[in-house]
Amino acid sequence: MSQPSFGYLTPETLPLFTDLYELRMLQAYRNQGHDPTATFSLFTRELPANRGYMIAAGLEQALHYVEGLEFGDRAIEYLTELEFDPAFLDYLESFEFTGEIRALPEGTPVFENEPLLEVTAPISQAQLFETAVINQIGFQTLIATKAARMRDVIDREGDGQRLVDFGSRRSHGTDAGIKAARAAYVGGFDGTSNVAAGEAFDVPVFGTMAHSWVQSFEHERDSFETFVDEYGEDSVLLIDTYDTVAGAETAKAVAEENDVDLRGVRLDSGDLPALSKAVDEVFPEVDEFISSGIDEYAIREFFDRDGIAAGFGPGTALVTSTDSPKVEGVYKLVAVERDGEMQPTMKLSKGKVTYPGAKSVRRTTEGGEYAGDVVGLREESDDLPGEELLETVVEDGERVVDLPDLETIRERAADLRRRLPVEHRRIEDPEPYEVRISDALEAETEGLRRTLEERMDV
Amino acid sequence: MSQPSFGYLTPETLPLFTDLYELRMLQAYRNQGHDPTATFSLFTRELPANRGYMIAAGLEQALHYVEGLEFGDRAIEYLTELEFDPAFLDYLESFEFTGEIRALPEGTPVFENEPLLEVTAPISQAQLFETAVINQIGFQTLIATKAARMRDVIDREGDGQRLVDFGSRRSHGTDAGIKAARAAYVGGFDGTSNVAAGEAFDVPVFGTMAHSWVQSFEHERDSFETFVDEYGEDSVLLIDTYDTVAGAETAKAVAEENDVDLRGVRLDSGDLPALSKAVDEVFPEVDEFISSGIDEYAIREFFDRDGIAAGFGPGTALVTSTDSPKVEGVYKLVAVERDGEMQPTMKLSKGKVTYPGAKSVRRTTEGGEYAGDVVGLREESDDLPGEELLETVVEDGERVVDLPDLETIRERAADLRRRLPVEHRRIEDPEPYEVRISDALEAETEGLRRTLEERMDV
Repeated sequence: MSQPSFGYLTPETLPLFTDLYELRMLQAYRNQGHDPTATFSLFTRELPANRGYMIAAGLEQALHYVEGLEFGDRAIEYLTELEFDPAFLDYLESFEFTGEIRALPEGTPVFENEPLLEVTAPISQAQLFETAVINQIGFQTLIATKAARMRDVIDREGDGQRLVDFGSRRSHGTDAGIKAARAAYVGGFDGTSNVAAGEAFDVPVFGTMAHSWVQSFEHERDSFETFVDEYGEDSVLLIDTYDTVAGAETAKAVAEENDVDLRGVRLDSGDLPALSKAVDEVFPEVDEFISSGIDEYAIREFFDRDGIAAGFGPGTALVTSTDSPKVEGVYKLVAVERDGEMQPTMKLSKGKVTYPGAKSVRRTTEGGEYAGDVVGLREESDDLPGEELLETVVEDGERVVDLPDLETIRERAADLRRRLPVEHRRIEDPEPYEVRISDALEAETEGLRRTLEERMDV
Repeated sequence: MSQPSFGYLTPETLPLFTDLYELRMLQAYRNQGHDPTATFSLFTRELPANRGYMIAAGLEQALHYVEGLEFGDRAIEYLTELEFDPAFLDYLESFEFTGEIRALPEGTPVFENEPLLEVTAPISQAQLFETAVINQIGFQTLIATKAARMRDVIDREGDGQRLVDFGSRRSHGTDAGIKAARAAYVGGFDGTSNVAAGEAFDVPVFGTMAHSWVQSFEHERDSFETFVDEYGEDSVLLIDTYDTVAGAETAKAVAEENDVDLRGVRLDSGDLPALSKAVDEVFPEVDEFISSGIDEYAIREFFDRDGIAAGFGPGTALVTSTDSPKVEGVYKLVAVERDGEMQPTMKLSKGKVTYPGAKSVRRTTEGGEYAGDVVGLREESDDLPGEELLETVVEDGERVVDLPDLETIRERAADLRRRLPVEHRRIEDPEPYEVRISDALEAETEGLRRTLEERMDV
């Protein structure tokens, strides 16, 4: 391996992407003969700031992780250094997931307290996944949501403008760059500039030119001529290096002299709505692509000010979800086997109470629009209104459904997003969507709370 | 490979972590016979919000990338699909960096307009690295800075409390989780919960227990007993699952009955300063470790309210740098060879003007404290006051210095941070530190601006 610390997570080192406490608990579960079946639920207690919904994403990667986990020599060697027991390391070396996973399909709008994933397995298996599945599903959900907000503004106020992820240089590391491209595509983007994401996920890749191309020539005109000589019609010329309107004039002259219909010009600085109109006046035949500081708020302002664009290239604001950079996913033990039966469990920690038990999430519809969700107990699912959203994807450690491909997920996400009434899709102060806790789940929660509080009094 | 899309960036796919435009420009530079020597400079135009300084980090990973880059079969196959020319793909397959790299050593406080990295090489080499080096250096610098702010509050108001990164589940993907652990260590943390980061970088790893451990037993007391039975004195018991003070009493009883000095107890919810004092009253012998919502602001408030802690475990706020989640690094062409000589270059884009030419960054000191920096032209370095911060690390494609190890970088960062006068280290409204542009660089900038503006008038 020539890059020991850059592209670090190979299949060899992947199992170590976990918190030490997971492995320490696992060892103690095993050594102490305390390995009950457990159900863990992955959800968020509240939506990120300014968000009226999230778009679920990242399930495919989470399943790859669970299903493919293998502790090889390198991982075992390091865990030996950390003084884990040889018997426990033998267990890890032969680790295999034998449990059940239920999940919300990718692309589904999701709200607070609704599980994105539920894992039921011996606790010495289910516990292990916590860090990695929160990480993958939380991040992709964050970015799919951010992307959907931009697509939603365009759906309502724009003209089908192309959205391309330009964020790889500002994503938090390389995995984020690649996964952001995938998640943005789920959320309604058309592609990415990230070549690795194209290779990994077949997301369409796009690329224009940088200021360095222009500056590397003495005259902007020479830089345009040379690029068009190389790429012909497949050229998007960056016209703001010195003066955007003059750059548009030069681009037009080069296009005419070479008898080429350019694919477009890119504007990357200044008062973008005003400049786009100025460019359109001097060079009306060309498509304008807009980058620099683009997010849902900038796109809305661009339309409000009658800017002209065929597409936008959001970067930093997309891949870091700058205005709200976290989905606070948790993976909580909600049920555990005692005396041969699954018993609901919860914690009472202040401000962090969780609803006990494996869940059902049902969504009701009126006139094709979403009309409220109910979160209940798994066993009451059939008695609750609406459609069940959680789907069993792994049983006895085996995949029991084929996951949809990325195009299908993306289309589904677009369709389902539009079913959410528009007041919940506002990019500021969205109306909260109703997520009701079922009567049975409320009763279970209150009963268990009383039991636990009484126990603490003793 | 069993996880094609989770741990994606292996040495095989690493070269594809780039924006498509880099490769398209590269191909055109090559095919068009336009391959001048170029200098690119990586810097930020302004500090992130609320920041009075940044701590440079990530150089080691950036150099691994540049030096280890190899386009193998898998990368070439995908680029063939994207219709790059065979001759260009041959060039990539035999790609080797032959240029020069100057850099700011990791752990150095750094400010706006100061290069963290300068690359001089044929433009068809130097251009290629843009996406990856901004990504790696930008992210680690972001997190090292966030970490340094927390350590700085403790240095000034605390008592040497331990800081451990608990953020892996909320980092933006896996690479961010691992690199955040490294960068936080550079910034003054004592370790991480991330096992992969321990393996990769020898960062000390720490782990306690989760609520699920406690909930998996019918009685909290049994859960504590069992854990202590397994780990003895090496136990940190999580005491807030049901009631923090009652949990502290139970922990104390278990410790006494087993005649064990616990390593500590962890508090993860509620009014943490108040609860820490309450816990200290019922169990004064034990160390309190504090997690949940920890950042520099929470630590300051914790001390202001006389909370009692031996350590803190910041998570989300650390690894996403939530209050300011981006370092807007850029990698700009600042000089290019024309007629056999290196000529300074710049763009005039509104709000994004760059200073031309390869740079010198010099730092002056008064009474051991930093007293202002000067950014000038590389060739005037010897005539400027203070100490030169940029160091040549790669010459003719070969490493010419040994990079310091992580412990050395961390110590250096702590030492240098304390040399920055305290008014620049305030966590809110810090006093801006002086970064003067040298007279020669100002003159060069103005002269070049006039030349470029005149050229646009033609």
